[in-house]
Order: sequence, then C-alpha cells, then structure tokens
Amino acid sequence: MTDKLDLVLERTLNAPRDLVWKAWTNPEHLKQWFAPKPYEINELDMDLQPGGIFRIRMVGPDGFDTGHGNAGCVLEVVEGEKLVWTSALGPEYRPAEMASTGCESFPMTAVVTLADAGNGKTLYRAVALHRNKADRDVHEKMGFQDGWGTCADQLEELAKALAVNA
Amino acid sequence: MTDKLDLVLERTLNAPRDLVWKAWTNPEHLKQWFAPKPYEINELDMDLQPGGIFRIRMVGPDGFDTGHGNAGCVLEVVEGEKLVWTSALGPEYRPAEMASTGCESFPMTAVVTLADAGNGKTLYRAVALHRNKADRDVHEKMGFQDGWGTCADQLEELAKALAVNA
Repeated sequence: MTDKLDLVLERTLNAPRDLVWKAWTNPEHLKQWFAPKPYEINELDMDLQPGGIFRIRMVGPDGFDTGHGNAGCVLEVVEGEKLVWTSALGPEYRPAEMASTGCESFPMTAVVTLADAGNGKTLYRAVALHRNKADRDVHEKMGFQDGWGTCADQLEELAKALAVNA
Repeated sequence: MTDKLDLVLERTLNAPRDLVWKAWTNPEHLKQWFAPKPYEINELDMDLQPGGIFRIRMVGPDGFDTGHGNAGCVLEVVEGEKLVWTSALGPEYRPAEMASTGCESFPMTAVVTLADAGNGKTLYRAVALHRNKADRDVHEKMGFQDGWGTCADQLEELAKALAVNA
C-alpha cells in the first residue's frame, strides 16, 4: 500500500561501498555530486547524528533559486549502511515550516541504503517517503528519477575517483 | 529565540526515576495516567525504538472524541533518561498527515527528560516543540499546562503505587 506513496531510485554503482559512504557523508564530497549539474550546491550543513542538521542550498544556472535551503533533520546513521533524514523536522527534531513552492513545499523523508553487490560494486537505494499520493506525484513530476539518477551517476564518478586517489 | 516556540512543564515528582520511567514506558501504565481524567485512553500503540509507532487515542466523557488517534513516531530513547517522539512523522519516519482540527491539527515534537532530584525524587521535564509561534499559542490555549500538569500528578501517583507494589 505504501508503495504508492514512495519514490525509489535503485542503482548498482561501480564503486566499493566504503567509498560510496565516504562520498555521501563527507560534506566536501557531497557538495560536488548531490546537485544534478548544472545545478550547484552553494551551502551545506550536515551533522551526522540523530537530531543533527541536514541542509542544502542549491542554485541553478544564472543563479536560479531552487527553493532549497530549509534545515532538515538527520534521523538515523548506520555507518556504511544507512542514512535517514527528513524535511518534516528541523535540527533537534523541531517540526519544520514548509516553503510555499518548490521542492521544500511538502515534507519528505529520505532513506538511503548501501549494500555490497560483489566485484567492488555497491547496490545503492534511495527512497523518498511522502505523507500522501498527491505529494508523491508532485515530487515525481518535479523530476525525482532524473534528478536523483543524474546525481547517482555523479556519485559513482566521485566514488571511483576517491579509489584512484586512495 | 526558540523559547517562544516551546511549551515546558517542569515538576519534581515524589517518586524515584526508575519507576517514573517504568510508568512512562510500560503501555499498561501509560494508559492509566497519560490522559487527564475524566478523559481516557482507549487505544495505545508504542514501539520504543527510533522509527517506532507512538499512537494514543483519547475519549472524553460521554465518548467525546478528542481528535487524537494519529500515529506518531518515536525518535530517541535513552533508558531512564530521555524519550522523544513527534507527530510530524508516522512509523518508519513517514511524514504524517495532520488532522483538520484538534490536538493533531499541528505537528509537535515532545521531549521528555528525567533526572534524579535527591531523596528518591525525580525532576520531570516535558517540552513541546512547535514549528512557529501560532502553533505554540494554539497548543497553549488548548490547555497544555493544565493537561500535562494533571497528567504529571497522575504519573506521580502511579509511580508511587509501583514503589509500594515493588
């Protein structure tokens, strides 16, 4: 039943799990891949513990404001395996105000999981949970698959580069 | 600044911390004191781990429906010390739908902490976090202090009774 409320991106990345995790959890790395180019992240706050801040501000070409920038909240961190955060809450679990338009006009929870896929590859799964189908559909039309898909490509490239530089 | 968004109840309870914790976390006990009499809890689901359900349904005299009954989410559990849950999320961290009226028409996060106060007493603190002052003011007018205060009296009585029966 809840399948209809979720959006799911699943990819096998050609990079080992520890480096994918590193690319996800190191703010300097995350900043490089978590916006689908030519969008860019110009501000990022991430405190990887339950109740910690998760905030990203994105700008598009010519300074186009995406409406991102609200402070979300980290909920679960399982080293190398799982990361959960939500925009329904801000830091210290305070309920968050939603923006009037854009990606932050509805609350969502993101559940990111990593699993070994053999041969130095990683099964990467990102699930967006919504409160109802209307929000899910809005998020889908905003381009969840394309956006998160492009980012997954960028994540793979970065994680592979980390291996070369290791 | 955030003080203006919070409602706080603080009491020194004449019961030891372990029994106050027990009265809070055992569903059968919680059911007996967490509604200010003559209100009653007729349904309760509580799974005390991050992502677990926290749901209470209350009825008033003559079956008056309080509007409670939505499923909230447990966020943090520190044995004997701290319990955090929110109505902004449901089980497994899914963003929650708000009710159209009543106590569940706005999201809130509850942070309950216990500390030893000496002589077998417990400093009991319950903080309700809101997203903005308007929600805080609505919650205050609904009778936060009276409601949580009456419940704190009932909690103290129950915890004391547990000591006698221990």
